[in-house]
Amino acid sequence: MPLLTRIRGPRDLDRLSLEQLDQLAGEIRTFLVEEVSKTGGHLGPNLGVVELTIALHRVFESPKDRILWDTGHQSYVHKLLTGRQDFSKLKMKGGLSGYPSQAESEHDVIENSHASTVLGWADGLAKANEVLRKEDHVVAVIGDGALTGGMAWEALNNIADAKDRPLVIVVNDNERSYAPTIGGLANHLATLRTTDGYERFLARGKDILERTPVVGRPLYETLHGAKKGLKDFIAPQGMFEDLGLKYVGPIDGHDIEALESALVRAKRFGGPVIVHCLTEKGRGYQPALQDEADRFHAVGKIHPDTGLPIASSGADWTSVFGEEMVKLGKEREDVVAITAAMLQPVGLDKFAKAFPDRVYDVGIAEQHAAVSAAGLATGGLHPVFAVYATFLNRAFDQVLMDVALHKCGVTFVLDRAGITGTDGASHNGMWDMSILQVVPGLRLAAPRDADQVRAQLREAVEVTDAPTVVRFSKGAVGPAVPAVGRIGGMDVLREPGTDAPDVLLVSVGALAPMCLEIAGLLDKQGISTTVVDPRWVKPVDEAMAPLAEQHRVVVTVEDNSRVGGVGSAVAQALRDAGVDVPLRDFGIPPRFLDHASRKEVLAEIGLTAPDIARQVTGLVSKLDGLPHSRLRSNGGTPTEQAHATVESARD
Amino acid sequence: MPLLTRIRGPRDLDRLSLEQLDQLAGEIRTFLVEEVSKTGGHLGPNLGVVELTIALHRVFESPKDRILWDTGHQSYVHKLLTGRQDFSKLKMKGGLSGYPSQAESEHDVIENSHASTVLGWADGLAKANEVLRKEDHVVAVIGDGALTGGMAWEALNNIADAKDRPLVIVVNDNERSYAPTIGGLANHLATLRTTDGYERFLARGKDILERTPVVGRPLYETLHGAKKGLKDFIAPQGMFEDLGLKYVGPIDGHDIEALESALVRAKRFGGPVIVHCLTEKGRGYQPALQDEADRFHAVGKIHPDTGLPIASSGADWTSVFGEEMVKLGKEREDVVAITAAMLQPVGLDKFAKAFPDRVYDVGIAEQHAAVSAAGLATGGLHPVFAVYATFLNRAFDQVLMDVALHKCGVTFVLDRAGITGTDGASHNGMWDMSILQVVPGLRLAAPRDADQVRAQLREAVEVTDAPTVVRFSKGAVGPAVPAVGRIGGMDVLREPGTDAPDVLLVSVGALAPMCLEIAGLLDKQGISTTVVDPRWVKPVDEAMAPLAEQHRVVVTVEDNSRVGGVGSAVAQALRDAGVDVPLRDFGIPPRFLDHASRKEVLAEIGLTAPDIARQVTGLVSKLDGLPHSRLRSNGGTPTEQAHATVESARD
Repeated sequence: MPLLTRIRGPRDLDRLSLEQLDQLAGEIRTFLVEEVSKTGGHLGPNLGVVELTIALHRVFESPKDRILWDTGHQSYVHKLLTGRQDFSKLKMKGGLSGYPSQAESEHDVIENSHASTVLGWADGLAKANEVLRKEDHVVAVIGDGALTGGMAWEALNNIADAKDRPLVIVVNDNERSYAPTIGGLANHLATLRTTDGYERFLARGKDILERTPVVGRPLYETLHGAKKGLKDFIAPQGMFEDLGLKYVGPIDGHDIEALESALVRAKRFGGPVIVHCLTEKGRGYQPALQDEADRFHAVGKIHPDTGLPIASSGADWTSVFGEEMVKLGKEREDVVAITAAMLQPVGLDKFAKAFPDRVYDVGIAEQHAAVSAAGLATGGLHPVFAVYATFLNRAFDQVLMDVALHKCGVTFVLDRAGITGTDGASHNGMWDMSILQVVPGLRLAAPRDADQVRAQLREAVEVTDAPTVVRFSKGAVGPAVPAVGRIGGMDVLREPGTDAPDVLLVSVGALAPMCLEIAGLLDKQGISTTVVDPRWVKPVDEAMAPLAEQHRVVVTVEDNSRVGGVGSAVAQALRDAGVDVPLRDFGIPPRFLDHASRKEVLAEIGLTAPDIARQVTGLVSKLDGLPHSRLRSNGGTPTEQAHATVESARD
Repeated sequence: MPLLTRIRGPRDLDRLSLEQLDQLAGEIRTFLVEEVSKTGGHLGPNLGVVELTIALHRVFESPKDRILWDTGHQSYVHKLLTGRQDFSKLKMKGGLSGYPSQAESEHDVIENSHASTVLGWADGLAKANEVLRKEDHVVAVIGDGALTGGMAWEALNNIADAKDRPLVIVVNDNERSYAPTIGGLANHLATLRTTDGYERFLARGKDILERTPVVGRPLYETLHGAKKGLKDFIAPQGMFEDLGLKYVGPIDGHDIEALESALVRAKRFGGPVIVHCLTEKGRGYQPALQDEADRFHAVGKIHPDTGLPIASSGADWTSVFGEEMVKLGKEREDVVAITAAMLQPVGLDKFAKAFPDRVYDVGIAEQHAAVSAAGLATGGLHPVFAVYATFLNRAFDQVLMDVALHKCGVTFVLDRAGITGTDGASHNGMWDMSILQVVPGLRLAAPRDADQVRAQLREAVEVTDAPTVVRFSKGAVGPAVPAVGRIGGMDVLREPGTDAPDVLLVSVGALAPMCLEIAGLLDKQGISTTVVDPRWVKPVDEAMAPLAEQHRVVVTVEDNSRVGGVGSAVAQALRDAGVDVPLRDFGIPPRFLDHASRKEVLAEIGLTAPDIARQVTGLVSKLDGLPHSRLRSNGGTPTEQAHATVESARD
């Protein structure tokens, strides 16, 4: 890498010739394929923006000028050009983040990996520059897929409102986000793409057309003075200009010279301007270009030459759900599916193949997914919206005010719930079980294994008058965890082995094996433990309070923020029932978590069996100086014997 | 009202002549002014849609065809035409809702008063019709203001994607929502409005232009075959058609014949079509038409002739905030304000007048308000986004992932928090203190009186590295509630009068007077009570747990959902500190609340001083059979004496 390794910062690009820049682009592609195939990561998107990123850093002066990346998974090239060339631990603990990171570099701004935010950030930064009378530039790079998100529209509407507030919007148009971009906007962009380009036309013919009266050419005569008509006749860039945004394009996103020329003009324009760049996702890497399913958007470890995965993964939560959806679809004609531009990642591709008329890809538009689901349900169908847990945040108001308020039978399937790890803070699905608690009528299932995913999905789609949620983890699904009994609607996973048990351990979802491990560790300390899986964690099962009352301590363990989660809900249910047994709730602490493997993150936050067993042991020891819960029968565990006197004093 | 009273349902409109329809429109306006001036309600919007509603019900067959109203405050005329003509208790307990209501009528669908949802609902209903092979029509009525919301864009993009799925979108364009509609879209609509109309042009000249070759008319010759160019030349309706939506308009929204003609064509079109109607908000009512501030959007009781309010209201929470913002703006040049199309209702009008360059009306776009605030803060300013509490739900993801994750100093001011009452389920601000609990780093203040609004707003804008929230109620602010002491950061509102108090009562925000009343009632039962106002309810003050431990019971009272609210947070803080004093949390039950006055709603849900005092008394009596909290000193209240034996058994 004779050129790449000499780039320590953006200004090192200034002295390179166009030929050298092309060479650099080639080196970067080789680097990305070699490095990302070792670690996994977002390969396709970054191969598509090599030239664009080089051109941006040559034309603008980061960090004084702000170069902002929507979603952020296409920032690898940006990292390489801003002093970060050690990709050996990409997305791993202590290594580079898979997204921009303010902690990594002053060249990074937006860390949030949720799509469609960049134009709003840019609008705010541009407004701040205006108020503070700074002449620095703000450049926002957004994909065509992200433009389908409502935030992008809200921002465009605002940006267009200030004709003299400079802001450069680069539309990185590769005709797809994960899946091909859908909708009216996609069709419009396609129209723009297929034209030869008004700008190019103008560049060639400007002088002749505008200055010289050409006799006998009615086209020019007629349209002279009707510039908009002319532009639309040649290149119908309509929509953006209708909103009041200057449009430049389409530009070949792999032609550095053309990109620089367009960006320089945009930089000088003095108002909001859109630079429409056509790029090819996976550019220069044959396995990516030949793959229609866009599996190279984000990859695990792969063979660099073939692009084939190195480790074949076993059954995962997603595919268990996806396969059951196909069965459900065959049994029930009213079941329809919704995805927000992630058909394959959420496992709905098989359903889509089987029932192409009953699946809706709404674009990166979670709000629309939820509100249109309310319409679908009201119209007589049962929609299932499958989405990454963290992205449901976007649709909170619609889940509450459209689906729940109107008592619609809509099922939300939350994939990648809990700690996902390597994608960092904004990809962890640690919010859903908290914010959804407040939604009246909503029922929430946290299946613990593949069988439960299937069973609870089926239970969920039976509910016709309320939203239902089925949430599960990322990655491989563990072996079945059998129930040894049932109390109310709750599965008993472990009996305490005594009729005077110490601890009621409430296990949520995929943490069941960990909870059984905790129970085993407590057992060694002489602490008898009942383990239950409520299956439906909202509402709290009516059998919970009476069961809790038969124990000395209640412990909840969940893969969700501790704040307002299942533990809090159980605690409230106990209070409401007048059961004041001490409760301790284990979950994810309320802070943003750095990227690392799921296992490393769980260890870091103390969500492991030994950590929890240790704390529960400490609590029980402390209680040994205190009386038991008042309704429990006398029992025989070592810890119990100690309380006999106190107990009798109360009876 | 010779005609109106004879209308029992939409089909009664069929037999009326055009002349009679105009008469009916007049009668409806008279009815609205007379009735709404007695009860208060949304006057202006309904006066604007009289003819439109009549035309819709003549052309479409509700309820088989679905007529959907965005936001829903313009559905009064619809109510009058669908059998609901008793407006005497509008928005009051037992009377008509101020919004559509499925419980009221089979003609109503969307009850949610949050804007911009209707196109998503319509898309879902149209898709359901398609799957179920129904030929019923779906008609969505949306204001130009609501089109600035991201949900509208997401829906338009989806609707445009299916060229042969029928759906009629009526854009009710009155150039304003609460405030004049802003942004690129508004400018575009203005362009459409000012043209003579392509449709009208076509209607007149269609045959001549399209069938007859006109010699010597270069305009036609040139543009023949370039339909889009022609259309844009005559009427640049560009944007909607660029997306692939058939556009009809602009139509005079007060000309029933023209409306019917356009709607009939739209109904027959067989695909998605936009009917652009120009209406006048407040039509036919001089006080509304003459008022630039749009005070007649929603009114209290007014004199029908003059439009002047009958009762002049005293100081309210909103104006206290608004006035303090002006002072802050003078002191700090970096403070800027944001509103989502509600400058006056949230009290920012004075700030806007004083600092026109430091206020941003982003449209009905809460997501953009929050994300652009992150940009503004990162750019060096301190934005204050003032919004109704219930509407912040829309921006949850942005508060979490843009503002909090990036540690931006942004202040959110939540007006109309808690029970607002008469506007029904979707206007109650009962979610914010729950969902915001999970946001790492966020600090939340609930000021109890005007002085605290001013003080806590100032404390909030001092925070530069985290989101801050100041939430207050609707309406008149009560008298000052002085603190009698301070513990940690908490104000003590009442000392217990004993060194062995029974109850720690945690009062949140405006409920302070009620909490003092509860303490008085408890006192009469011999139960001594400390009342504290934490002021900042998130995070829970560090002094809370030690203070709780000195009491036998902790009681929290909040004007927010009980689920996951302040009570739950305090309970968790106590658990985390190992303080297992029984706690009871009072708040709003987790269900949607029917419209009624705030007082009536509070009574219905038991959030009153006598109700709470009764329950706390019951709890304390029950505890009298149980041991005290272990750290408390011996005391002298009547209830305490009863425990002496139990206490000593433990010591």
